[in-house]
Amino acid sequence: MSEKLVGACIVAQSGGPTAVINSSIYGAIKTAFGSECITGVYGAKHGIVGIINNDLIDLRQEDPEELSLLPTTPSSALGSCRYKIDDPDADETDYKRILSIFKQHDVRYFFYNGGNDSMDTCEKIDRYMKKVGYECRIMGIPKTIDNDLCFSDHCPGYGSAAKYIATAMTEIYKDTIVYDVGTITIVEIMGRNAGWLTAAASLARLNDPECGPDLIYLPEVVFDFENFLNDVQRRYINDRNVLIAVSEGITDKDGKLISQYSLSRSDSSDAFGHTQLGGLASVLATFVKARTKAKVRGIELSLLQRCASHCASLTDIEEAFRAGKVAVESAINGETGKMVAFEREIQDDRYVCNTVLVPLKQVANKEKKFPLEWIATSGNDINREFFNYALPLIQGEPERKLVNSLPRYTRLKKIRVE
Amino acid sequence: MSEKLVGACIVAQSGGPTAVINSSIYGAIKTAFGSECITGVYGAKHGIVGIINNDLIDLRQEDPEELSLLPTTPSSALGSCRYKIDDPDADETDYKRILSIFKQHDVRYFFYNGGNDSMDTCEKIDRYMKKVGYECRIMGIPKTIDNDLCFSDHCPGYGSAAKYIATAMTEIYKDTIVYDVGTITIVEIMGRNAGWLTAAASLARLNDPECGPDLIYLPEVVFDFENFLNDVQRRYINDRNVLIAVSEGITDKDGKLISQYSLSRSDSSDAFGHTQLGGLASVLATFVKARTKAKVRGIELSLLQRCASHCASLTDIEEAFRAGKVAVESAINGETGKMVAFEREIQDDRYVCNTVLVPLKQVANKEKKFPLEWIATSGNDINREFFNYALPLIQGEPERKLVNSLPRYTRLKKIRVE
Repeated sequence: MSEKLVGACIVAQSGGPTAVINSSIYGAIKTAFGSECITGVYGAKHGIVGIINNDLIDLRQEDPEELSLLPTTPSSALGSCRYKIDDPDADETDYKRILSIFKQHDVRYFFYNGGNDSMDTCEKIDRYMKKVGYECRIMGIPKTIDNDLCFSDHCPGYGSAAKYIATAMTEIYKDTIVYDVGTITIVEIMGRNAGWLTAAASLARLNDPECGPDLIYLPEVVFDFENFLNDVQRRYINDRNVLIAVSEGITDKDGKLISQYSLSRSDSSDAFGHTQLGGLASVLATFVKARTKAKVRGIELSLLQRCASHCASLTDIEEAFRAGKVAVESAINGETGKMVAFEREIQDDRYVCNTVLVPLKQVANKEKKFPLEWIATSGNDINREFFNYALPLIQGEPERKLVNSLPRYTRLKKIRVE
Repeated sequence: MSEKLVGACIVAQSGGPTAVINSSIYGAIKTAFGSECITGVYGAKHGIVGIINNDLIDLRQEDPEELSLLPTTPSSALGSCRYKIDDPDADETDYKRILSIFKQHDVRYFFYNGGNDSMDTCEKIDRYMKKVGYECRIMGIPKTIDNDLCFSDHCPGYGSAAKYIATAMTEIYKDTIVYDVGTITIVEIMGRNAGWLTAAASLARLNDPECGPDLIYLPEVVFDFENFLNDVQRRYINDRNVLIAVSEGITDKDGKLISQYSLSRSDSSDAFGHTQLGGLASVLATFVKARTKAKVRGIELSLLQRCASHCASLTDIEEAFRAGKVAVESAINGETGKMVAFEREIQDDRYVCNTVLVPLKQVANKEKKFPLEWIATSGNDINREFFNYALPLIQGEPERKLVNSLPRYTRLKKIRVE
C-alpha cells in the first residue's frame, strides 16, 4: 500500500449514456463515502466541462435513498459531454483551469466514467498532473454499449443493451410474421465501427430457433449492395417474411458509410427543399423496396437500446457497480493512470468476472472489433460461439423501484459546491 | 339460457397485433375446452383468410404448457390479416365459402379477436348466417392498442401499449437531457386518428414532474405548423432540451396528414384504404431543424409499442383473458352478433372493470376519439384528468417465463384440421 493521500474526489461521466452507467458512479460514490482518505465527494456536471466551469455538486448532501436508486436509473445522472480536450503539450489552457479547480477544492482523486474518448481525456489529465507535480490519482471507469474498449473482456453497459436488443428483436420478429402477405423489416442497431451490439440480435434465436433475424450485417464485413439485395430477395421469395439486423456503421469497400448513400428520389426532399433526415434503415428500405417491390419497414432502435433500464441485466448492473468500486479502492491504494477492466474466467463451467487494471495509455482511442471468426463465412450471420460469450453478460433481472407500475428513477438535489 | 347448441368453434385474430391479444384467445380457448357444448376447438390461420382457405389448426392437440404461455406472448399467435370482406348483399362469394367450411367442420361458434374492421367482418358474417338460416353464434373479442373502439371504456391491448410508451418516454427523456448542448427530440407514436396512445406519453411525468414530454400533439387537434414551430422554438430557447410526443395521425386544417407533407405515398395504403402511417418524426425533424438550427432527432416507437410483452400490464393481460372468456360463455348462453366491451366502475375509490355486450352493428367501423376536455387549451398538452383514466389500466407486472434471462414465448405445433 502506498502513502495515504487525503483529499476530495470528483466523479464525472462522459460520452453516450448507458442503462448502467449510474451503477458505476454509485459504486464509486459509496466506496468514497466509506473511505477515511476521501474528504469531499463531488460530482462534476457534464463531465470534464463541469470541472472547467467549476460546476460541481456535493454528493454527500444527497438523500441516501435517492442515491440507492442510481443502479437502476438509466442515462448519466451527472450529465455528460462530448468535449475533446487538447493535448497538454499543445495547449495547456484547459489543464491550468482544471488544476486550479482541483487546488481550490483540494481534489486528490478523479474518477472518469466513459468510453475510449474519456479514457484519452483521463490519460492526458493524469500526464499533466504528473508533469506539474500535483499529486492526484486519476482512474478510468469503463462504460460503453458499443463494447469496443480494448483490454477488457467486455464493457459495463453492453450486457443490458444486448439484452434489450435480443428481447426487442424477439418481439419484433413475432410482430412481423403475423400477416399472410410477406414483409421485409430492417432494424438498425447502434455500435459505431464495432458489431457487438448488432450481433446481440442473434440471441433472439436462443429460445426459439425459428425466431430472430434472418440476416445480420456487421461493420467488420465490407457491405456489398448487390450481395445484400440478392440475399434479401432470395429470402423474401423463399420465406415471405424477412427480418434483417444491420449495424449503423456498415461501410462499402471504399469505407463510405452506407447510411450516406441515397437513391435519387424525387420525393426525398421536403416543402422547403431540404433533404429528409433519415438513418441507415430508411436508406436500405428504399433500396430493398425498389428491388423487391415488397412491403418494407425500417426500424431504428434509437436511444432505447442504450437507456432501457426496464430491461437491464442484473449481471451488468453488478459489474458496473464493481468497476466504480474497484476504481476508488485502487486509487486509495496508490494507483493512478489506469482503467478498471474485466477478465473472464471459467470456474467449473461457471462464468466469473475478475477486475484488472490497464494503463490508460493502452486503452485510449483504440477500438476492439467483433471477432471475424464469430461471423459466418457468408458474411451475413453470426456463429453460435458468440452465444457463449454474450449469455453470461445478460443474466438476471434487477429489482426495480416502481410506483404505479412505472419506473421511479433517482432524483438528485444537485447542490452546488461553493 | 337459450337452447343448447352443440358444435365446433373457430377462434381467429385480425388486424394489428398487440402485447395481449393472445391472452384473449387463451381465455376463449380455455373456456371452450371446458364446455360440454363445444366439440372441436379450431384456430383459423390469418384470420378470416384462414377460414376461406380452410387453413384451420386443431387447438386441442397443442401442449397445455405451451398454450399457458399465450397470455405473455406478444403478437397474434394464430396469424392475422387485413382482408376486407365484401358486403353479403353485394357479393356472396366469400360467405358461401365460409358457410361451406363451417358446415364441413360443424362449426357453430365463431370468435373473432380484432378491432373496428374485424367487428365489421363479424357483423357481416353474423348477418349472412342468419339470412341463410345456418345457426352459428358469432362474437367479437375486442383488441386494439389504439383504444378507439366505441361503447367500451377501454380496449385490451391499450394498457400495455400505454405502459410501454410511458416507460419508454421516461427513459428517452433521461437520455436526451444529459448533454450540455441542447437537443430537440421528436417521438412519433401510433394510434391512427385517435390520440389515446400519444396521450400516454404524459404518464412519464407521474413519478417525476420534470420528466416526460414538453409538448404533446394529438390528432384530435388541428395541427398548425406555425404554432408548432413557435412552441418548439420557445421551449428550445428557454429549456435547451425539448422532448415532443406526436401522434402519427395529426392533420392540418384541410385534413391532410402532416406525415405526407413531403412524401407522396400513392402506394402506401392497405386493403381497407387506410394510408399506412409512418415517417412523421423525420418530416417534423426536418422542419424543426430548419427553424431552430438545433440538433434534432426523430424517433419512431414503431412496432415495439404494440408488441412489447416484456413491459405488459398485468391488468391488461387479465382483462384481455376475460374478454375472450366472456365471449365464449355468452355464446354458449345463446348470444350472437355482439362484442364484449368494458365498463368502468369505481367501488370505494377502487377501479373495477365489468364486461357488457354491445351489438356488433353499433361498434363496427366507428372510432372513439380522445376527449377534447382532456386536452390542454393550448392544444399541445394533456390534462391530468387523463391520469385517472389511464393509471388503472397499466397496473401490475405479469410473471413471465424467462430462459437465460430472455423471454420464452409460446411455440404452437399448429396441426392442421383435415
